[in-house]
Amino acid sequence: MKKVIYLSLICLLSLTAFGQNTKKNLPKNIIFLIGDGMGVSQIYAGLTANKGHLALERIRHIGFHKNQASDNYVTDSAAGATAFSTGKKTYNGAIGVDATQTPQVTLLELAEKKGLATGLVSTADITDATPAAFIAHQIKRNMHDEIAKDFLKTDVDIVVGGGRKSFDQRKDGQNLLDSLRSKKYQVVESLAEMNAIKQGKFIYLYAPGDPIKISEGRGDVLLDATNKSMELLSKNKKGFFVMIEGGQIDWGGHANDTNYAVSEMVDFNKSIDAALHFAEKDKETLVVITADHETGGMALLGGDMKTGEVKASFITKSHTGQMVPVFAFGPGSEAFQGIYQNTAIFDKMKSALGLTQK
Amino acid sequence: MKKVIYLSLICLLSLTAFGQNTKKNLPKNIIFLIGDGMGVSQIYAGLTANKGHLALERIRHIGFHKNQASDNYVTDSAAGATAFSTGKKTYNGAIGVDATQTPQVTLLELAEKKGLATGLVSTADITDATPAAFIAHQIKRNMHDEIAKDFLKTDVDIVVGGGRKSFDQRKDGQNLLDSLRSKKYQVVESLAEMNAIKQGKFIYLYAPGDPIKISEGRGDVLLDATNKSMELLSKNKKGFFVMIEGGQIDWGGHANDTNYAVSEMVDFNKSIDAALHFAEKDKETLVVITADHETGGMALLGGDMKTGEVKASFITKSHTGQMVPVFAFGPGSEAFQGIYQNTAIFDKMKSALGLTQK
Repeated sequence: MKKVIYLSLICLLSLTAFGQNTKKNLPKNIIFLIGDGMGVSQIYAGLTANKGHLALERIRHIGFHKNQASDNYVTDSAAGATAFSTGKKTYNGAIGVDATQTPQVTLLELAEKKGLATGLVSTADITDATPAAFIAHQIKRNMHDEIAKDFLKTDVDIVVGGGRKSFDQRKDGQNLLDSLRSKKYQVVESLAEMNAIKQGKFIYLYAPGDPIKISEGRGDVLLDATNKSMELLSKNKKGFFVMIEGGQIDWGGHANDTNYAVSEMVDFNKSIDAALHFAEKDKETLVVITADHETGGMALLGGDMKTGEVKASFITKSHTGQMVPVFAFGPGSEAFQGIYQNTAIFDKMKSALGLTQK
Repeated sequence: MKKVIYLSLICLLSLTAFGQNTKKNLPKNIIFLIGDGMGVSQIYAGLTANKGHLALERIRHIGFHKNQASDNYVTDSAAGATAFSTGKKTYNGAIGVDATQTPQVTLLELAEKKGLATGLVSTADITDATPAAFIAHQIKRNMHDEIAKDFLKTDVDIVVGGGRKSFDQRKDGQNLLDSLRSKKYQVVESLAEMNAIKQGKFIYLYAPGDPIKISEGRGDVLLDATNKSMELLSKNKKGFFVMIEGGQIDWGGHANDTNYAVSEMVDFNKSIDAALHFAEKDKETLVVITADHETGGMALLGGDMKTGEVKASFITKSHTGQMVPVFAFGPGSEAFQGIYQNTAIFDKMKSALGLTQK
């Protein structure tokens, strides 16, 4: 009799354990890393330059997204990022608005509304298309002053990028950095100052316009901002959403400059590596890495995994239309397998964080 | 008391069921589809031409393989297919031999030894590098007469491809088709004849040299041979291994001819679709689809999912070195996720079929 009761208890405990393993496992946090212009060749050029390895090799859940814009087979970064941030196909140049120019609520706004901490980090201007599409709603991507003003309508916790002049050298004479200070943002003026922050909201606009290349001494601003975001945002018990952009892989592609694209890819890899380390330890974080599109039609004509030499060529100074890979790690990452529209990335992330739209 | 006993029994049954679900699920059959030269752009060009969809969209387990040859960053089809067929990195031009020119046992030979039915199907010459590497052992890919002779050393059940002249118009005057007949092969002379076969081994060499393009009237030979292979080989109770090559996607790339590459991709998609239908029904078949390398450095500059128009450009008349995607479906397909060497495909398939090397 006693044996049977013990057996029953063991069985029930085991079933509970099995049940937990098979239960849908959802993340508390999302780190969304966008390598602008990062197609398969850019990734593999980076892997070659990095002597045969990249952090992406630690990921098993892989997919591809179809990135066509609503008005063009070849997307720009504005329509591409708006698809990610709002789940809507839109026209090239659109920032957080759909094909009819109607503003759409973004992932970052939904996350904020649910009480999550949020952040935007880029190696490009913070008012450039990719970060802008997560926080602003403007009908044209070149409306930098208007985009900058949209930052004040939100309560984003961390902002790191270039493009300071749209905040403090504006046509309307306003100084948005002062406005941000009055909203209790710490306005940071150096990397050391950023790295010393222990809590609270901050904005660090580290260049008046375009930030410089990694090869010209930009330093570890992307890696440090990635680490600082994870450190500060994870203090929020409800979780966090951060978008981190390797923005100049794309600029290397536009310039048809192999060394430029490759060095930016290797720099971006450091942030991917840091995000994966955080997620591996934290176990409640979904990390998604993708590109908005490929830039340049890059192809690898030769190379050497031992020396890191890369011999590549480009077809165009513009973007291309082929699908680009998506890599996902952590709870909820299975959903990013397969081939799907870029807009599905919004749906998958929204559903992973249990965000509701209203 | 009775309740407790019933509960125990239910628990034990439930645990057994859970155990079966989590048990490693291995396939009985493998259908290995190689799109020669089929990189991401070729796939997406095919998807666009096919009005926005491909059979590959039914697959969730995706990976990438690193395809460098032992002596060159950019592989040829011989070293690429030998990596798949033997698990050894080798030099460009090698057919089933390693970097020291030593013959290596192939997946097809291991499958045969274990009693599996086997097949090789291609839209290229059957003595060309990709199919050859699964059945022949020669130090140079252009040794077509010697490669053809190696077909007689095996007991492959189904052979469909071009390149008949290496069997019946040989320098040594032998007629290998007669030799095959004496080994009880049905030597088929038309597609209708092939489609009428109900059992037994057969060889169908449908062109003296290179088969013609799909756009010039090749017809459904690849699809029909795929279906016939699945029909006949699945009669073997021990299972089967078949390699099916879309060989002319590569030729379209070498020719820098968008329509050529795209039409061959769309033709290859029919075989992928048929293989997935078979596996979806059969549930014991692992389908793996990949390329040996990309050809041409193809990039998509425009297109239309509604009309199927594709605007593409190529960088080179040769192959490129970037990683190429792997799609896997069915039992054992999880193992094909992630980024790995092309040689790992041999290891994964060998392990999936429980083949032993000795």
